[in-house]
Amino acid sequence: MNYFFNAPDDVVDQGLSSLARIAPIRCSERDSGVRLVIHSGHDNNQVAVLSGGGAGHEPAHAGFVGQGMLTGAIVGDLFASPSVEAVLAAIRQTCGEAGCLLIVKNYTGDRLNFGLAAEKAAREGYQVRSVLVADDISLPEAVQARGLAGTVLVHKIAGYHAAQGADLDTVADAAQHAADNLCSIGIALSSATLPGQDREPRSPELGLGIHNEPGVAEVDPSDAADAVRMVLEPLLAKADARFGDQASFVVLLNNLGGCSTQEIGVLLDECLAQLPRDRVAAIVVPAPLMTSINMHGFSLTLMPADNDILEALRAPVSAVAWPGLRDITTAETFAPSLTDRKPPGGGARDEQRAQWLQVAIAALIDARQELDDLDAKTGDGDTGSTFADGAKAIRQALEDDALSTGDDAMLADEIGDILSLEMGGSSGVLLSILFTATAVALREGATAADALARGADKMQEYGGAQRGDRTLLDALLPAIGALQDSQSLAEVAKAARAGADETAEIAQAGAGRSAYVRDDALSGVIDPGAEAVARVWEALASG
Amino acid sequence: MNYFFNAPDDVVDQGLSSLARIAPIRCSERDSGVRLVIHSGHDNNQVAVLSGGGAGHEPAHAGFVGQGMLTGAIVGDLFASPSVEAVLAAIRQTCGEAGCLLIVKNYTGDRLNFGLAAEKAAREGYQVRSVLVADDISLPEAVQARGLAGTVLVHKIAGYHAAQGADLDTVADAAQHAADNLCSIGIALSSATLPGQDREPRSPELGLGIHNEPGVAEVDPSDAADAVRMVLEPLLAKADARFGDQASFVVLLNNLGGCSTQEIGVLLDECLAQLPRDRVAAIVVPAPLMTSINMHGFSLTLMPADNDILEALRAPVSAVAWPGLRDITTAETFAPSLTDRKPPGGGARDEQRAQWLQVAIAALIDARQELDDLDAKTGDGDTGSTFADGAKAIRQALEDDALSTGDDAMLADEIGDILSLEMGGSSGVLLSILFTATAVALREGATAADALARGADKMQEYGGAQRGDRTLLDALLPAIGALQDSQSLAEVAKAARAGADETAEIAQAGAGRSAYVRDDALSGVIDPGAEAVARVWEALASG
Repeated sequence: MNYFFNAPDDVVDQGLSSLARIAPIRCSERDSGVRLVIHSGHDNNQVAVLSGGGAGHEPAHAGFVGQGMLTGAIVGDLFASPSVEAVLAAIRQTCGEAGCLLIVKNYTGDRLNFGLAAEKAAREGYQVRSVLVADDISLPEAVQARGLAGTVLVHKIAGYHAAQGADLDTVADAAQHAADNLCSIGIALSSATLPGQDREPRSPELGLGIHNEPGVAEVDPSDAADAVRMVLEPLLAKADARFGDQASFVVLLNNLGGCSTQEIGVLLDECLAQLPRDRVAAIVVPAPLMTSINMHGFSLTLMPADNDILEALRAPVSAVAWPGLRDITTAETFAPSLTDRKPPGGGARDEQRAQWLQVAIAALIDARQELDDLDAKTGDGDTGSTFADGAKAIRQALEDDALSTGDDAMLADEIGDILSLEMGGSSGVLLSILFTATAVALREGATAADALARGADKMQEYGGAQRGDRTLLDALLPAIGALQDSQSLAEVAKAARAGADETAEIAQAGAGRSAYVRDDALSGVIDPGAEAVARVWEALASG
Repeated sequence: MNYFFNAPDDVVDQGLSSLARIAPIRCSERDSGVRLVIHSGHDNNQVAVLSGGGAGHEPAHAGFVGQGMLTGAIVGDLFASPSVEAVLAAIRQTCGEAGCLLIVKNYTGDRLNFGLAAEKAAREGYQVRSVLVADDISLPEAVQARGLAGTVLVHKIAGYHAAQGADLDTVADAAQHAADNLCSIGIALSSATLPGQDREPRSPELGLGIHNEPGVAEVDPSDAADAVRMVLEPLLAKADARFGDQASFVVLLNNLGGCSTQEIGVLLDECLAQLPRDRVAAIVVPAPLMTSINMHGFSLTLMPADNDILEALRAPVSAVAWPGLRDITTAETFAPSLTDRKPPGGGARDEQRAQWLQVAIAALIDARQELDDLDAKTGDGDTGSTFADGAKAIRQALEDDALSTGDDAMLADEIGDILSLEMGGSSGVLLSILFTATAVALREGATAADALARGADKMQEYGGAQRGDRTLLDALLPAIGALQDSQSLAEVAKAARAGADETAEIAQAGAGRSAYVRDDALSGVIDPGAEAVARVWEALASG
């Protein structure tokens, strides 16, 4: 299974049936032999705007049915025009006194079937006008241009005027004007795969239709910028010839089906970079609008923008798939407010505390190899190195006289900052959280013990580990508990050691580095983080 | 070149730079070392709602920045958490007296970096609260759940309350409530391809994260229905256990990046078919919301719906990528008004005209092989057969006494209907257009010659061919011209023949079947359609 389909024959009907659950539409009964999608709220006093064609271009055309856009869509099989009878039934369903406009993409099948339906409808007394969309600029002059994604702009403009209550001629003339002012061209890195088929996709091509027919030329773009250039050069040349080289455009970047959001972002950036700033008035939010199933490509459409067209394209609609028009703005930037690297250590000094720090630092540096060895049994073997790096960074700060050893809160902050910058890894951030949160609590008046407890709370909150998860918390939390109980440093160290030793008996780890390790690999091995914490307190107690 | 990227390192910045041209956002300067996307219109008196994480999930998170949703997004490298410094800078940029909410997906890197930033911000006096989103239900109980696409619903709900002017605790509590009420799980047919890499994608997997890490289980869905079942069964089981089996949900169907519009239509249909009707309250319009680059898969999220949540999700936003919430409706259908196959031939009879028809019919049936042979020189060799089929159908109608030979308009209509139903091909539709439009003109009082001229106009309009394009028009138009000049039938036949013969000299064909044929293949060959028309008039003249 390579694609999320059921039976290939069900693709079109399932798409319509799901759309009918979320869009303001009604569908013709599934066994009726035709596929009509009609706006539930259509006001018969307004001009009906109908379009359609083969399926495989979703969200076109059914996704554009709704207030302010299409009154109805007539849907064929994949890449096959709907029948004359289907188009005629759609006209009967929607066309009142105000008449009906057919918007037809310029493919022989659509032109003929919609055309005959229009004639038959006229015979039945319906007022019908048709507009043919032929926006493709890739074919030679002698050959009739095809209808591409620009058709969606004609839907929107016609739907706008119909919703305003304009008469048939006004709606049709506006649609014709739109159709006469469209230039489109597509490019793809690989062709479409039809449901149920698994043909090797073709190579990159320029000048594609939307029915997987081969493009006008095989191309070999070197990157996204090059692909956009291949599309924009002939497009701008044609548009300049038709509309003058001062014209400012509405741009439509259509995902032919297979481009990722990230690719569309890059392509849009290239389009806006390569198009002169004053040539772009507004843009339809890039989206899959007129797709060729999963074709990995895009098409670009340019349409000269005037106020009437912009107003018509801006008006809100209830159709599900219209992504909206956006003005093009200059990309505003700002200078972010980053932390001043001001020299720390602006507070008081205290020799006793500096001494304690040196003891703890020495303990961690001495334990480096043992801790790495412990870690290697269950992890990547760098706990000792990481802790030693942090310890060395603090020793350096002491040597630089950059620690406020006489001010608990400032000292905790300074240590927190050093650890987040110099220690690295998750442990560095976690210990930085411990010290930073401790500093906040100290400033709020907490005792040292309670402040450390608050810091440890934050470690648990952000780190996600709790006591019993085989992390340094298993030694740290008992030690802090003993401190809060005002026990001696020796008792504190004993509590930390007991907690660390217990980690050797914890088989199941719920968070932290051991969470993904097999239980039998953990048995009998002390967590190296907890061991580090115990070593620090033992050193302080005996130091 | 397999993907529309430039240098892999530019993907993230180009996406943001293009977004900044169409969205109400400002970005941090590109060389600032951090990537911040801030809502230009942010009101500092409102709570700032920030989110972010690694890139590669576009449109998340920057696409959701705008009025009513995120105040800002902090963007890392592809699949890599942004730095503590970046998060802190975003807080400084947006957080006023009202405070700031951080919405964090539950991945270690994000949790720690956003966590430490929150603590540092608190130290600087900012009021900051954090909400962790962990909606993935695919991992074992012991392992912390990851944050998936449900995060977007938390963005929307928090943004709604912030825009309402709620205080930080209200916004954060609403976001926490949302985060506590999410269940998500993903499935993919193939894994993501990172820009610049070209690794073989992995096989179908269930229970994916969004960083291309392997899923919880390899699976082998047989079709789209099966894939949806694999996702919905554990999802509903978990949701029922947590929220009760009566809960009605908001459904979010997230395109992980590589699904076509057609596939999403089928998947949505399956979801809505497999979920009990009364369990679905509303749905976010399916879209790529939290992607994993081009991963060919989807995730489903369920969130119990209450009125507050629906109101928050319904509110409009100015963010580019929020696709809107839609109520789920019953799919309404209607019986299309198809043409009654009423027995034709309700008008008068005229023996002379019946005679003429028989002559024309015989001429076409006799010419079958010759016309096929002519066609085979430049086309698919079936013109004679197609015309003979049409002729036989009309002969059958004559034999059934089903033609109103005594009423020109009715007769033209009847012939038009028979040709559109029985003749097949483009020619059948084209000739049906000729006769149907002729009938309309006759009813409006035109002479037979003028009515035929009007019919031929419509053929040109819908068929796209004109005189000189090597089609049957090259014989038909001169014949009609002679009729309009009231010339004898012999003169009419002579005009048709001259027109037909001229097609042998037309090298360049602009429309019709010869448009795509090499010029040298056309030289000296009469167009078989034109030949058919000449034969009919010649038979009538001599008959």
